[in-house]
Amino acid sequence: SWKGGPEVSAPGGWSFKPRGRLQLDSAIIDAPASVNAGDGLGFGTEVRRAFLGVEGTLPGNFGYRMEVDVASSGVELTDVFLTYKPTDKLTFTLGHQKAFWGLEELTSDLFTSMLERAAFNSAFNFERRVGLSGVYSNKDLLVQLGAFSANAEDLTSDGNNSYSFDGRIVYAPKIGEGRLHVGGSAHFRDLNDSATSVRYRARPFFHTTDVRLVDTGNIPATGERSFGAELAYVQGPFHATVEGHQITPLRPGLSNPTFRGGYAEIGMLLTGDATVYKGGIYDRIRPKSPVSAGGIGAVQMNLRYDRIDLNDEDVAGGLQQAAGLSAIWIPEDYVRFILNYGHLWVSDAAVLAGADPDYQVDTFGVRAQFDF
Amino acid sequence: SWKGGPEVSAPGGWSFKPRGRLQLDSAIIDAPASVNAGDGLGFGTEVRRAFLGVEGTLPGNFGYRMEVDVASSGVELTDVFLTYKPTDKLTFTLGHQKAFWGLEELTSDLFTSMLERAAFNSAFNFERRVGLSGVYSNKDLLVQLGAFSANAEDLTSDGNNSYSFDGRIVYAPKIGEGRLHVGGSAHFRDLNDSATSVRYRARPFFHTTDVRLVDTGNIPATGERSFGAELAYVQGPFHATVEGHQITPLRPGLSNPTFRGGYAEIGMLLTGDATVYKGGIYDRIRPKSPVSAGGIGAVQMNLRYDRIDLNDEDVAGGLQQAAGLSAIWIPEDYVRFILNYGHLWVSDAAVLAGADPDYQVDTFGVRAQFDF
Amino acid sequence: SWKGGPEVSAPGGWSFKPRGRLQLDSAIIDAPASVNAGDGLGFGTEVRRAFLGVEGTLPGNFGYRMEVDVASSGVELTDVFLTYKPTDKLTFTLGHQKAFWGLEELTSDLFTSMLERAAFNSAFNFERRVGLSGVYSNKDLLVQLGAFSANAEDLTSDGNNSYSFDGRIVYAPKIGEGRLHVGGSAHFRDLNDSATSVRYRARPFFHTTDVRLVDTGNIPATGERSFGAELAYVQGPFHATVEGHQITPLRPGLSNPTFRGGYAEIGMLLTGDATVYKGGIYDRIRPKSPVSAGGIGAVQMNLRYDRIDLNDEDVAGGLQQAAGLSAIWIPEDYVRFILNYGHLWVSDAAVLAGADPDYQVDTFGVRAQFDF
Repeated sequence: SWKGGPEVSAPGGWSFKPRGRLQLDSAIIDAPASVNAGDGLGFGTEVRRAFLGVEGTLPGNFGYRMEVDVASSGVELTDVFLTYKPTDKLTFTLGHQKAFWGLEELTSDLFTSMLERAAFNSAFNFERRVGLSGVYSNKDLLVQLGAFSANAEDLTSDGNNSYSFDGRIVYAPKIGEGRLHVGGSAHFRDLNDSATSVRYRARPFFHTTDVRLVDTGNIPATGERSFGAELAYVQGPFHATVEGHQITPLRPGLSNPTFRGGYAEIGMLLTGDATVYKGGIYDRIRPKSPVSAGGIGAVQMNLRYDRIDLNDEDVAGGLQQAAGLSAIWIPEDYVRFILNYGHLWVSDAAVLAGADPDYQVDTFGVRAQFDF
Repeated sequence: SWKGGPEVSAPGGWSFKPRGRLQLDSAIIDAPASVNAGDGLGFGTEVRRAFLGVEGTLPGNFGYRMEVDVASSGVELTDVFLTYKPTDKLTFTLGHQKAFWGLEELTSDLFTSMLERAAFNSAFNFERRVGLSGVYSNKDLLVQLGAFSANAEDLTSDGNNSYSFDGRIVYAPKIGEGRLHVGGSAHFRDLNDSATSVRYRARPFFHTTDVRLVDTGNIPATGERSFGAELAYVQGPFHATVEGHQITPLRPGLSNPTFRGGYAEIGMLLTGDATVYKGGIYDRIRPKSPVSAGGIGAVQMNLRYDRIDLNDEDVAGGLQQAAGLSAIWIPEDYVRFILNYGHLWVSDAAVLAGADPDYQVDTFGVRAQFDF
Repeated sequence: SWKGGPEVSAPGGWSFKPRGRLQLDSAIIDAPASVNAGDGLGFGTEVRRAFLGVEGTLPGNFGYRMEVDVASSGVELTDVFLTYKPTDKLTFTLGHQKAFWGLEELTSDLFTSMLERAAFNSAFNFERRVGLSGVYSNKDLLVQLGAFSANAEDLTSDGNNSYSFDGRIVYAPKIGEGRLHVGGSAHFRDLNDSATSVRYRARPFFHTTDVRLVDTGNIPATGERSFGAELAYVQGPFHATVEGHQITPLRPGLSNPTFRGGYAEIGMLLTGDATVYKGGIYDRIRPKSPVSAGGIGAVQMNLRYDRIDLNDEDVAGGLQQAAGLSAIWIPEDYVRFILNYGHLWVSDAAVLAGADPDYQVDTFGVRAQFDF
């Protein structure tokens, strides 16, 4: 069968499929000239993601995925794991994987509604980690639990012996013509002498820069705990999502600050296509009338409010709010073009505009994408 | 179908093919013992190129290629792009690609007639860049235009906002039994504060060393412009090529030097095989009688004069001239062995022989190669 | 056909197969608290190997393999070569390959009986190198010879012009119901000004740490020579292996020390399966009754004594002895889980326990593995 690329299979449970994706981004980040960010802002172009990999299945209900990102002219491991599915409802995964951070983080970056996920997803250092997880799904219920060490690259250091426990529950019943999604996640991490501090910071809406206008700097910590809440409703071409997450670094001998981030979004497909929700996350929208069939493909408009607050207790990392508007064009299945505008209000910023910690930034970005 | 590796396809426009190539080189660069190049010259062996990647097509006239070079035990992106072919005559390419530098640079490194391309191709920093290009081809005419930012690896730096406009025109009519190739290219690049200098330099005929005997050193510049001219004639087993390129770094407040390079070459297949020219470049020679069919494969002899002059105005980078002789053996389609001798005359060299800037160098190299 | 992954072929000698492997390790290295190894010991997790690559054949008896290890979030070339098989008995290999170090080193890391090979294999710097080799095999006889330069990554340095000659002979006659294996190898390497010293050292049984308790430090040398001896017997579910290797760094103007390592091992499959020996090395054990067929797969128990002595002449690198016990479970072909316990006796250690160079270490590790 064909899923962007060929999937080959053989009797007994064997299958194999190459995987890959390419995201090419250009963006303008138009901050006041007085913002002290060197040459990091302004116009930028980057290979956002360039994944190459494979996935497959073996007899005995085993499966695997091995994929790397080479976008930065280096190697970053992404999904690199072995799976075991004793029943249709249960999946165990051993290896480098996402730790059930929340709805948008678990939704593939191929299917996000803006160029980048909401600020808290990167600010709170959501990443893949090597661990063992179990997922139980039964009709409307999804339970995800895992124990993790650290990111694969961090594990190349002998001294890294951090660990975490992460879980997420989703209840997603049909409500009339649509589907409701209610979810929550909890995360407990012990740095266990692998590090003595944590840091939370966020880019200004796009990834073409490495500048972070809001940034807590290093916070002495022995661990961190975080909680996420998710609410969404999907019906035909329409979806609405609200998600929040709060994280608390555990400071020895000091009171613990709590930082909060979240977003609210609505989106609408204008072309008679339907938003796709599956397994507790958003999935691939396949245009009913692609260009190759004489249609115009699928077009989705999305509007979002995104907020990350890195001020609490004695930590003043700044508050970044953004209004985002995106238009996504899917001319063919597996091909996607995105236009994305964002307006940012930054206050108590870690990067000043002259002497002023409060200012606004306009951003505009485009992406071309395909995958297989 | 099979093209070195398997090409799988499915109805509607889907196709997929793995890609790869390996080039293993050994070479001796025999310079006077007094040449002050540390242990960089002499005998060397290297994995010259080790590419792994994929290419494919999607419905709607989309296509893609993603390939990386891992020869240096790192990742270098090579062709990483999305294409769109609205008609047979028109191709748009978005992503990491060559910027239409000239005949030899656009000819695949799998099919060059010496181990390395003529010195100006590397001296003038021809490279792939992220950009958008359009190619129009109609019978004997080829027009290539593009706007580019920088090399993918350079783009990982926030500050890189250089851009260029590049174009090339080729007219290639049939003349009697053969085909004439006349081409020209023009290139305009603005460094746009991403850098404040450019540098031109060339290796001594082979790539096994990182020593450059001719080298302008850093030249303060805000941009550069260059022009190339190409002339070739192909008839059956014979080909002759002449190509030249001149580049001018734009120096603020100073007169602009112009550096010139070029080569002239003739080649002959001795085995009844034919040189292959296609789409404005040289293409794969497929032996009529490969070893597996009881033949001896294809054998090509090539003779070249190669010149790079990095002296102009107040810049004294040196003059390197080379006479090259190569024998290429293609025992089977997709397998190639090359013997290559080169004699170099270096003057005003950046690397002295004792106190003498003028000297001669003998080089001999071999390559084993396959691809799929 | 299917070999973990799909092997595609076409008439005339074409074939192509993707390759990959994943090994995920966790281990505890429980040394006395006084051992001065920073945070390098204790509990550790790592992606031990993550290979991605391809192999194939071409008409004319050519073949190739290109594979890289990305486990360390970088690229390490593994098998990257072109082969030519003029007859069934003769294979020439050009490229990055193993230099016939010995039985266990040449046995794939997929099939070793402990998590790691015996200490001398890494202590003596067995590695892949770029070179040309020839292998002759005829019934019970195997002769392997090669000339090599250096590891691909080392060759990216201009100055590396080391070379070696390496050979191995194996005689493996059937003896009654079983097969005897007798082998020897010899290795001569000239550093040839690419380096001025060598260093021998070994990890404490597992690879999750980069600490080496035994370590000669840098030894001034112009080259090294080494010899290996191998003896094994395989019959049905049983195997016994004894292997030793001694290496002598060649010190200019000083007497040459000789360091010795070796191991003795017995193993037994408890599930009616058979140990597989092929082409002078151990090969893949395929369970007769995998879990998918209602069985329990194959289970193998192995017991080993492993010794590395880095003390000789004026060099006091230490002596490390280990007793290892492993249980290997192969629930399905191409999937493997390993439990491994090791007890180490270290004396004259390079890393002291307080002031004491003699101490003992307990280790326990697990691995999950699949390949295709």
